[in-house]
Amino acid sequence: MIEVCLSPELISLFDCRGKAVVIVDIFRATSTMVTALAEGIPELIAVAEVAECRAYGEKGYLMAGERQGDKLPGFDLGNSPVALQKLTEKKPLCMTTTNGTRALHLSQEAAKIYVGSFLNISALAQKLKEQEHEVLIFCAGWRGHFNMEDSLFAGTLLAKTGLPFESDAAKMVLHLYEKAKGDLDGFLRDSSHYQRLLSKDAAEDLAFCLKEDIYDIVPEAWGDKIILSA
Amino acid sequence: MIEVCLSPELISLFDCRGKAVVIVDIFRATSTMVTALAEGIPELIAVAEVAECRAYGEKGYLMAGERQGDKLPGFDLGNSPVALQKLTEKKPLCMTTTNGTRALHLSQEAAKIYVGSFLNISALAQKLKEQEHEVLIFCAGWRGHFNMEDSLFAGTLLAKTGLPFESDAAKMVLHLYEKAKGDLDGFLRDSSHYQRLLSKDAAEDLAFCLKEDIYDIVPEAWGDKIILSA
Repeated sequence: MIEVCLSPELISLFDCRGKAVVIVDIFRATSTMVTALAEGIPELIAVAEVAECRAYGEKGYLMAGERQGDKLPGFDLGNSPVALQKLTEKKPLCMTTTNGTRALHLSQEAAKIYVGSFLNISALAQKLKEQEHEVLIFCAGWRGHFNMEDSLFAGTLLAKTGLPFESDAAKMVLHLYEKAKGDLDGFLRDSSHYQRLLSKDAAEDLAFCLKEDIYDIVPEAWGDKIILSA
Repeated sequence: MIEVCLSPELISLFDCRGKAVVIVDIFRATSTMVTALAEGIPELIAVAEVAECRAYGEKGYLMAGERQGDKLPGFDLGNSPVALQKLTEKKPLCMTTTNGTRALHLSQEAAKIYVGSFLNISALAQKLKEQEHEVLIFCAGWRGHFNMEDSLFAGTLLAKTGLPFESDAAKMVLHLYEKAKGDLDGFLRDSSHYQRLLSKDAAEDLAFCLKEDIYDIVPEAWGDKIILSA
């Protein structure tokens, strides 16, 4: 059985315990996490606060993060999967995000926490089919609001797993998937966060985040650490 | 500008002050309110608690209400627009609902609170176009969860007003409308609350609640009172 939580504001309606939770923040936290591990970053930490991230920076970690779409002062890179792909120095990395990290923290009681993106969607769907827990797809949204890209991903993942579902939220995201399939970019072009990022020169990231099956890995969260799932 | 709130759990993300809020609980609180006023009930009160409703009953009001889809013991009728249509004795009525009343209470800071249903959708759309406030369509949902019928109504109302919108939630409900239009009943048939009510013998109510423009009135809430908008 698969459930879908459309926003962190709704997570109290669900019980994460004993479930496999899939964290989704397509633009761009979870796409960045998947890219980082797939591109050979040896250790990945995700934290909520800028100060925590800087503390890791002082220990020699690369620092990745943005606020309001701008790279943080003194940071090595923004919240950008494309920048991570181009990175030549594969050092341990600490990233700070808002919506994505919030969702991670709110699902710490789960049996498993997976990291979802279009970049690894088939590997993730396969992993979900092979494991035994009920699944909760947890959309990080934007400042608590419903957002289109995370919900569309939820629908696409749901369709790909073929696992059963019941809730209206699951049925709704599947409608979005059916409407968007074949042209994710066209479907999302007028959505809020897509437009917001476009105005911040993130067009290359947007296009990349919507590519399916670039990577064959599934990241898993253990506390603040994001690791490769066995 | 029109915004859409998909659940009472999300209302803190919006500011109701100065806005015209449309309360939506299609199955069946707001459909019942519209029917009651249109069918000549001279005074209508909506309360959250069964005990409050009984207190009105002792003052001579008819009592309408259900819990888990069953009519409350000693009550005159359930939460049923069809039962209200058939009512011969038009006395003051107090109704108790859960999701619908919760949404009403959470929007008390609004400049105006309108009651929305398919039964009066064109009259309501006209009213929204004629007034000056920004509009927030507030879906009552089910126990805090997203639900399909309220969201579909939000999309239908949005389309009918032609007023501008920006948010992803607004765009999503419009997708639902585009998919469902022409066959609301078919679209909603597998949704959760439709199925729940069907199992409680509410088929007649379900069909009625999806009829458009049966009534040409717009109810407005003033505290616990639901009155005809001038």
